[in-house]
Amino acid sequence: MSEDAFLEKLIARLPVSPPDIVIPPGDDCAGLRIEGGRILLVAVDQIIGGKHYHLEGHYKPSPEQVGRKLLARNLSDIAAMGGYPRYFLVACGLSPAHDESWLERFFDGILRLSREFGVMMIGGDLAATPTDAVASLTILGEVSEAQVCRRSGAQPGDCLFVTGSFGRSLVTGWHLSFKPRCREGRWLVEHGFASAMIDASDGLLIDAGRLCRASGVGLKLNTAAIPLRTPETSLEEALTDGEDYELLIAAPREKARQLRKEWPFAELPLTLIGEFIASDSHTVLGPDGTPLAPGGKVGYDHFA
Amino acid sequence: MSEDAFLEKLIARLPVSPPDIVIPPGDDCAGLRIEGGRILLVAVDQIIGGKHYHLEGHYKPSPEQVGRKLLARNLSDIAAMGGYPRYFLVACGLSPAHDESWLERFFDGILRLSREFGVMMIGGDLAATPTDAVASLTILGEVSEAQVCRRSGAQPGDCLFVTGSFGRSLVTGWHLSFKPRCREGRWLVEHGFASAMIDASDGLLIDAGRLCRASGVGLKLNTAAIPLRTPETSLEEALTDGEDYELLIAAPREKARQLRKEWPFAELPLTLIGEFIASDSHTVLGPDGTPLAPGGKVGYDHFA
Repeated sequence: MSEDAFLEKLIARLPVSPPDIVIPPGDDCAGLRIEGGRILLVAVDQIIGGKHYHLEGHYKPSPEQVGRKLLARNLSDIAAMGGYPRYFLVACGLSPAHDESWLERFFDGILRLSREFGVMMIGGDLAATPTDAVASLTILGEVSEAQVCRRSGAQPGDCLFVTGSFGRSLVTGWHLSFKPRCREGRWLVEHGFASAMIDASDGLLIDAGRLCRASGVGLKLNTAAIPLRTPETSLEEALTDGEDYELLIAAPREKARQLRKEWPFAELPLTLIGEFIASDSHTVLGPDGTPLAPGGKVGYDHFA
Repeated sequence: MSEDAFLEKLIARLPVSPPDIVIPPGDDCAGLRIEGGRILLVAVDQIIGGKHYHLEGHYKPSPEQVGRKLLARNLSDIAAMGGYPRYFLVACGLSPAHDESWLERFFDGILRLSREFGVMMIGGDLAATPTDAVASLTILGEVSEAQVCRRSGAQPGDCLFVTGSFGRSLVTGWHLSFKPRCREGRWLVEHGFASAMIDASDGLLIDAGRLCRASGVGLKLNTAAIPLRTPETSLEEALTDGEDYELLIAAPREKARQLRKEWPFAELPLTLIGEFIASDSHTVLGPDGTPLAPGGKVGYDHFA
């Protein structure tokens, strides 16, 4: 069973949301109404040795990179809602193979990125594990109710834009060095360009599919337009490798031209790669109108 | 190095708190000012197979008990601040030895207790680990700024009261079945009886010491008065076993008599076990005035 399927079943068992839950579980963040039209955003993400990073060999990251990635993944969730990241808590379980110096360097990586993004650590828990290294980070952010961007707002006819490029996030080191798109997410919601957003963490195809299901629409991808991270990157890699941490943005068609024109981040490409369509099955189609599932694979489920 | 020592070093590296951080890291919960004199409480705690519960043998808990304990530990942190628990998020990393049925039963245990305490799950993350089972839970609660109770408010002359009894939490199964003292914590702060509180999770002695250090006081314990969980429980076990999850309450001396008289929870003993004293070394003393460290052991550090 996939993480999505398990969580859907679990969410269905939860009691009906009280009125201060503006965004119930199932989006990049949950959202709680706090005051004066503001929403508190909350999300949690994990980083697990041997699952989210290599424990040995050429791709083994430094402790600083592991810490940085943990915070960066969570910042990316806030970015996808158009929010400001504010605070975070870290829970860390380490096997005896990780000494105090490892832990210090892990927190160095977290704290360095936290200063860059103006986000503050407000709590934590440390414990020992028998053999693995596991850490989770809970992030708190903020956004106005008028600006918050959910997964569920895409309409048939909306354009799908993406930031940056896709595929080969492991071999290029991108999965450790990516820059969360908080600034870009804020700009998009401030200027009213995004009807829905999600960050592409598990793969362009799987996350585009999540956006479709949440919005009750389908998607026709212009696969030839998808920006590839390197000249060697295949379309299949771009669609399914995952860990791109770019924004998938649904934008109303009538604003697409203006969005392209006004996009102020010269160093970061914004690319139109598809169009949302009416579809009861919420399928992601290729340019020929058949469902996309390259090599039978749709993405990387960190749970399965 | 202990968890306390590492976290103290880490906290010293954090930037100065912005004004909306009412309670900085280092208490049972962090506290953020939200609106109209309210504080949002946030805490995170973990549960790790082989560390917080037995993986094999007579003491091995059911998946429901593991889930229940994870939430209960966090509820206990909210109780110690005098807060109302509201929402929580769960991050869970499971080895292949844990199947979907294990995960369902784990969440059954969490959700059953959550209904009892009126607290709602608003988010989560599931991932696979190579060999261990690790879960963390982040809890959000609420309390008015006028009522919030911190570790740091104890004064020389204050009395130390405790709820319930201590020791042998493992062999009696208490560490799995304990009831978080949220109702009692609320009552104490509503009636202005507590100048400081902490929940005894790592052991009466170690947690009383934390309360002393945070408040800048010492403590003289009347060890003969400490309520023992069973007739067989030794004083050393009561002081150092840990996992009691009872409240340690500093109460002004002039209110002690009234507190005993008005305590409305007939089924739960409230016992006076000591007096806070002026002390630069923040030491916990026995009745003879010498520092307490039975068997050289002060408690159970889940990190060391």
